[in-house]
Amino acid sequence: MPEPIIRAFGVLKKCAAKVNMEYGLDPAIGKAIMQAAQEVAEGKLNDHFPLVVWQTGSGTQSNMNANEVIANRAAEILGHKRGGKFVHPNDHVNRSQSSNDTFPTVMHIASAMEINSRLIPNLKILHNSLHSKSVEFKDIVKIGRTHTQDATPLTLGQEFSGYTTQVKYGIDRVMCTLPRMYQLAQGGTAVGTGLNTKKGFDVKIAAAVAEETSLPFITAENKFEALAAHDAFVETSGALNTVAASLMKIANDIRLLGSGPRCGLGELILPENEPGSSIMPGKVNPTQCEALTMVCAQVMGNHVAITIGGSNGHFELNVYKPMIASGLLHSVRLLGDSSASFEKNCVKGIQANKERISKLLHESLMLVTSLNPKIGYDNAAAVAKKAHKEGTTLKDAALKLGVLTSEEFDTLVVPEKMIGPTD
Amino acid sequence: MPEPIIRAFGVLKKCAAKVNMEYGLDPAIGKAIMQAAQEVAEGKLNDHFPLVVWQTGSGTQSNMNANEVIANRAAEILGHKRGGKFVHPNDHVNRSQSSNDTFPTVMHIASAMEINSRLIPNLKILHNSLHSKSVEFKDIVKIGRTHTQDATPLTLGQEFSGYTTQVKYGIDRVMCTLPRMYQLAQGGTAVGTGLNTKKGFDVKIAAAVAEETSLPFITAENKFEALAAHDAFVETSGALNTVAASLMKIANDIRLLGSGPRCGLGELILPENEPGSSIMPGKVNPTQCEALTMVCAQVMGNHVAITIGGSNGHFELNVYKPMIASGLLHSVRLLGDSSASFEKNCVKGIQANKERISKLLHESLMLVTSLNPKIGYDNAAAVAKKAHKEGTTLKDAALKLGVLTSEEFDTLVVPEKMIGPTD
Amino acid sequence: MPEPIIRAFGVLKKCAAKVNMEYGLDPAIGKAIMQAAQEVAEGKLNDHFPLVVWQTGSGTQSNMNANEVIANRAAEILGHKRGGKFVHPNDHVNRSQSSNDTFPTVMHIASAMEINSRLIPNLKILHNSLHSKSVEFKDIVKIGRTHTQDATPLTLGQEFSGYTTQVKYGIDRVMCTLPRMYQLAQGGTAVGTGLNTKKGFDVKIAAAVAEETSLPFITAENKFEALAAHDAFVETSGALNTVAASLMKIANDIRLLGSGPRCGLGELILPENEPGSSIMPGKVNPTQCEALTMVCAQVMGNHVAITIGGSNGHFELNVYKPMIASGLLHSVRLLGDSSASFEKNCVKGIQANKERISKLLHESLMLVTSLNPKIGYDNAAAVAKKAHKEGTTLKDAALKLGVLTSEEFDTLVVPEKMIGPTD
Amino acid sequence: MPEPIIRAFGVLKKCAAKVNMEYGLDPAIGKAIMQAAQEVAEGKLNDHFPLVVWQTGSGTQSNMNANEVIANRAAEILGHKRGGKFVHPNDHVNRSQSSNDTFPTVMHIASAMEINSRLIPNLKILHNSLHSKSVEFKDIVKIGRTHTQDATPLTLGQEFSGYTTQVKYGIDRVMCTLPRMYQLAQGGTAVGTGLNTKKGFDVKIAAAVAEETSLPFITAENKFEALAAHDAFVETSGALNTVAASLMKIANDIRLLGSGPRCGLGELILPENEPGSSIMPGKVNPTQCEALTMVCAQVMGNHVAITIGGSNGHFELNVYKPMIASGLLHSVRLLGDSSASFEKNCVKGIQANKERISKLLHESLMLVTSLNPKIGYDNAAAVAKKAHKEGTTLKDAALKLGVLTSEEFDTLVVPEKMIGPTD
Repeated sequence: MPEPIIRAFGVLKKCAAKVNMEYGLDPAIGKAIMQAAQEVAEGKLNDHFPLVVWQTGSGTQSNMNANEVIANRAAEILGHKRGGKFVHPNDHVNRSQSSNDTFPTVMHIASAMEINSRLIPNLKILHNSLHSKSVEFKDIVKIGRTHTQDATPLTLGQEFSGYTTQVKYGIDRVMCTLPRMYQLAQGGTAVGTGLNTKKGFDVKIAAAVAEETSLPFITAENKFEALAAHDAFVETSGALNTVAASLMKIANDIRLLGSGPRCGLGELILPENEPGSSIMPGKVNPTQCEALTMVCAQVMGNHVAITIGGSNGHFELNVYKPMIASGLLHSVRLLGDSSASFEKNCVKGIQANKERISKLLHESLMLVTSLNPKIGYDNAAAVAKKAHKEGTTLKDAALKLGVLTSEEFDTLVVPEKMIGPTD
Repeated sequence: MPEPIIRAFGVLKKCAAKVNMEYGLDPAIGKAIMQAAQEVAEGKLNDHFPLVVWQTGSGTQSNMNANEVIANRAAEILGHKRGGKFVHPNDHVNRSQSSNDTFPTVMHIASAMEINSRLIPNLKILHNSLHSKSVEFKDIVKIGRTHTQDATPLTLGQEFSGYTTQVKYGIDRVMCTLPRMYQLAQGGTAVGTGLNTKKGFDVKIAAAVAEETSLPFITAENKFEALAAHDAFVETSGALNTVAASLMKIANDIRLLGSGPRCGLGELILPENEPGSSIMPGKVNPTQCEALTMVCAQVMGNHVAITIGGSNGHFELNVYKPMIASGLLHSVRLLGDSSASFEKNCVKGIQANKERISKLLHESLMLVTSLNPKIGYDNAAAVAKKAHKEGTTLKDAALKLGVLTSEEFDTLVVPEKMIGPTD
Repeated sequence: MPEPIIRAFGVLKKCAAKVNMEYGLDPAIGKAIMQAAQEVAEGKLNDHFPLVVWQTGSGTQSNMNANEVIANRAAEILGHKRGGKFVHPNDHVNRSQSSNDTFPTVMHIASAMEINSRLIPNLKILHNSLHSKSVEFKDIVKIGRTHTQDATPLTLGQEFSGYTTQVKYGIDRVMCTLPRMYQLAQGGTAVGTGLNTKKGFDVKIAAAVAEETSLPFITAENKFEALAAHDAFVETSGALNTVAASLMKIANDIRLLGSGPRCGLGELILPENEPGSSIMPGKVNPTQCEALTMVCAQVMGNHVAITIGGSNGHFELNVYKPMIASGLLHSVRLLGDSSASFEKNCVKGIQANKERISKLLHESLMLVTSLNPKIGYDNAAAVAKKAHKEGTTLKDAALKLGVLTSEEFDTLVVPEKMIGPTD
Repeated sequence: MPEPIIRAFGVLKKCAAKVNMEYGLDPAIGKAIMQAAQEVAEGKLNDHFPLVVWQTGSGTQSNMNANEVIANRAAEILGHKRGGKFVHPNDHVNRSQSSNDTFPTVMHIASAMEINSRLIPNLKILHNSLHSKSVEFKDIVKIGRTHTQDATPLTLGQEFSGYTTQVKYGIDRVMCTLPRMYQLAQGGTAVGTGLNTKKGFDVKIAAAVAEETSLPFITAENKFEALAAHDAFVETSGALNTVAASLMKIANDIRLLGSGPRCGLGELILPENEPGSSIMPGKVNPTQCEALTMVCAQVMGNHVAITIGGSNGHFELNVYKPMIASGLLHSVRLLGDSSASFEKNCVKGIQANKERISKLLHESLMLVTSLNPKIGYDNAAAVAKKAHKEGTTLKDAALKLGVLTSEEFDTLVVPEKMIGPTD
């Protein structure tokens, strides 16, 4: 069971004690529970949670585990011995709660916290770094490639601006799903009706969690949906799946643009992180791209698992909760950590191989497009075909064909003028 | 190639002609193109589009097909013969355009239109119908089920309110993805730079498409992203995948709650659409649920295909465009049509089998929970265990154990009081 | 509903009539049914099957459709009028059958036939073509690439032998699943018990289908499994998914190796199928690779849909049958057709760009490995690093460093000796 | 990095030393390596492998880790100090090897061993247990259910025989993929050519691994395929995906058949593993079914991740190796362990609720089918419809309609005669 779930139980049980005191829980006991739960929230009692994922699909055992750990610790705080039930796991710690509403609640708390604290900041760092590269490379004109074939030019900065935008939208995509992730099931108890709670308990506890976490949690509009389905997880996983698709594209491009050193595209020089092969100096393997693309594949796989779990609930309770929570938190952690690593160990240090870029650009046949207005399409085509056939430059071919002079050619064929719309 | 793509080509080419006239396209030719393109947009020339999906990954052939059909028809309108190139497919119809920006543009136009005209309205109808049922069933108290096992009661209306909320959020989820779907690649031409366009062309054409479709299309903030990636499709497909997960849950519940007539749960009476089995009267197969859940599985599969296609772009152009577009439009159509059919032929006609619901509710052992406050947990447990063991009612067991009187039992055990929080 | 399903109904109903005559069906009627069913099997009556996939999950309507079409046609053959039920759809055509066993039976018949007639032969053609290329290219030594980076050399023939093996094993993989695909549900009737059939009916009908199709169909060992699950389809789809993974790898490699013409790897010259870009002569888009990789993505998506459908059966009947059948047949057709097209329009015409291959090979720094035994790892590393830093050849660097003579270098650095183990 | 990978490195390095001695490795050093590697194979040095999955996609670091751990330990065994390179990690332990061939080799060894030692035996236990239940329940006639609706009867034993067959075929499916899993890449070194190995090395090392593991490993027919693709993993994962689909169906059926205790189907009594709800005696949650279905969803997700990784190799090396290996081993372990747990804690203890089964069977309207031959379809239909409408038994309805006598009814309506074909 992922640690963020355990910590979220700490947050929830602390808030529950706080609200339960308003509804009559003995303040001495309530405060001790709050203190003990705070320790759980801080990860101090992680050792007392020997939890596994492949369990009851409602996470009941995890909830009972949390109740007992907190009850024991709270009793201890009050000077009583552990196991004596001076603070009762059910009557006090779990008061007005059921596994069926606490577990979905901690799923949401843990996921929203991890997304906000681990994923989004790292995606932002990656975004900023890609943006910086886009600015750094804004004047480097290079050959474009479509269908993996040579195409009209663009700047390396423009190319990186595409990656930048992908990550920017990725952040937007994840953020867009949070309004539903901020809805808490707490207060629904066993089947969503709120049996054994007092009116207002649900609103108060969501407010307490919001205050505790500084995240805008609210009570779920409909508790039946909140217990019986985990569409919010399928949705957020869908956003992560999109981020994975984006990052896979970016990492693939970067390793191909950095392929070589002699027999690849060679336009980018990637930072050398690990010593190269023991027999081949100059070989820099794009290990960061490899780690990242493996992560992306796993996130796509987790997404399918979450989708299947999410679609298979029965009646009042979806019982794929631990797997769904674990899968989403896994994907969040993988994407967050590998975005950070990819930024730090790869993107930040990428250099443009200007010489190589320039060489490829000027050898390209695609620049012939610039001649169309002057010598017409047919002549331009003849120039390109001759150059292609004979393996010469466009200029050589043009001069040999006598369609224009050297000066004319140099005036017309200017890649720098091919990188945007005209006035 | 799905029809909405063809129609979207009509919309785009009409708008392109309109904007190109501002930039110097001969008005006579421009107007003829607009008229011809309008016919394509209306589906009148569908027969001239013998397009298949498994083609060049940029959709080049579809773009050329559209250019030629429109050029020929425009020439005809102007009194020239087809094929004579009086209106030129490239120079006039495709002016300032490239397959690489037109195809992603029509992908976005077609998808946004289909989502708005076919999917969302049908999901709303389904939502409203589920909501009506939720209101209709608001006073029918029934047994709840968690882990597929008997649990505390809720109303059938509450159960349906969960489904209603799932569909409501499903609509929100799809709508949330539209801001990125409304961004058009047009103006990026071959690699995103906008080579061969005039400044402002991209903004104007998006505005024209917006006016034409009454949808808030805008020019893509970054054309490099718009050609090289189709994250917007992966994202929207993720929202459809979530809707599919929701509908699968709902349809599964409904067929199980309607299982029987004698040997199932039997709480719902589903409308009889097809004649039942030729040998078994009373057998109503939940065919609508079956069609819907098959659709949901297909949408989940299409989502994986779209994700794989979306993640595998290279450099300046993603070349899985026709597959991605076709997959998304397929999913939109399937979900839209089957939501409508499910609403019309199933949800609307669902009746509660009140007698059966009441019988199950009152036989349930779960009502024993109500006795806890009066006779204590231990006695209540003894009552439930005795009833379970002997196969009797709770009341019989309670009276035999002598823990309370018949009157007391009837006062305490009131399912109607178990369906919400207390004051 | 895919056509192979309709044709398979023809096969099945013909065989059913044949066997039913042994059990007492009037021979005149039986023979007419056989003749009518044969017409269905030949696709002559396709127009009478306005079937859609998104229907009852048991395919009941398709079975009834087949019964009626055949009954009417058989009556006609016997000189009676259509619709008069002289030949009864249920009592005669569907005798001893149920939709619940006929539909899974036609699923198996259609899939096995399509796999044998469409997929396997085309994969074999592709395999042979790749093998021919592997032989044709056996003496062309080229640079290897691992991690997309330059590595030690191999022959182009060896590279293609890897692809060849992938396809060979792909054929094996699909064939391995057929033993379970050859098991027919027929004889299980409504729930697998065989109610309303005579003992031996199941064995006889499987034998008749085997004779009719020349494929080794047998009766399913367990009819309960054959109705309630479609694991055989999940399994076969898994084999197709593996073939798709293989073909995606091959097509990706080929388009990257053929990238250029000037700014890519340029080792392969792909056949030019469509006219290149209107403005860029020499640009050959790898459209066959693009169509094939789109197909592969779709097959992977269909596989997920089939898996979800296959896992969601309830009790005695899986009701995702039409979707599962349609998905598998779609994948079979897509892979079969695109393998054929890829072979014909791409693989067969691939040429090696020997000059380019040789140039890259000899510029590579990887050949330095050959110097290790003579001058030691440290000196070899110094040579490679110097060449990399100064952008020169290994030979230049070696001579400058004075670690060996020109003759020694030429004797030692022989890529042709680096392509296999030593004696 | 999963432990089986580490152990497989021990196996491989032991065998490599053994074979290298034949090719000239100093026997003293060779034997020390064998002893050290044996310790790795036994898991004794696990602590020295701080490996993570999200790394270089070739597993290079894991290979180097293994080389170093074994070199150090071998040096120690020979009385030298660790780190002194008396036994050299590269020159001795990694002799004639490359990460590019060792890592795929250990992937295959680890997976084949885990499948044979963990998955297959547990599936066989599950198969045997289901088969025993099938025999135990062979005389319990119960109502069948198709479309979740009442259908003609079968025995509970027949129902379980379907599950038994699914697991039996699942075992066959996994076994069918092993011939390709038994092929080892070892001897291919960096790109598949076998550079730096002696002829015959590949065959000898595969033989040594086969002897060491008692599994029929052989050298891969084509080393280029063995490094550049992991189709064998995609294939085997496909078999696991099929097993997951089967087990999900079985677990779903069992929890639904065991639903209740009062308001569900209630035909099965599942073993009570955990104490039921604290407030609801008699509630037995099907926790084993829940854990198993969560596992199945995860296996399906891992399959997609493996498929994506498998399809994305470039040129001579697939660089998704650690993720692919980890995913497959995860799925193997999850399915193996949960099959064992499901058998032990659920299947073995399942009891039939004979009373409930009998009650449902005899209340069913489906038995009316037996009356067809005697009173004709129309009268039988009338009986069923009357019973359905009035909520009575078939017998009541038949007697009221006067279509037959009580004795006749009892003679005709015998569910026990409806469970198979007739003579």
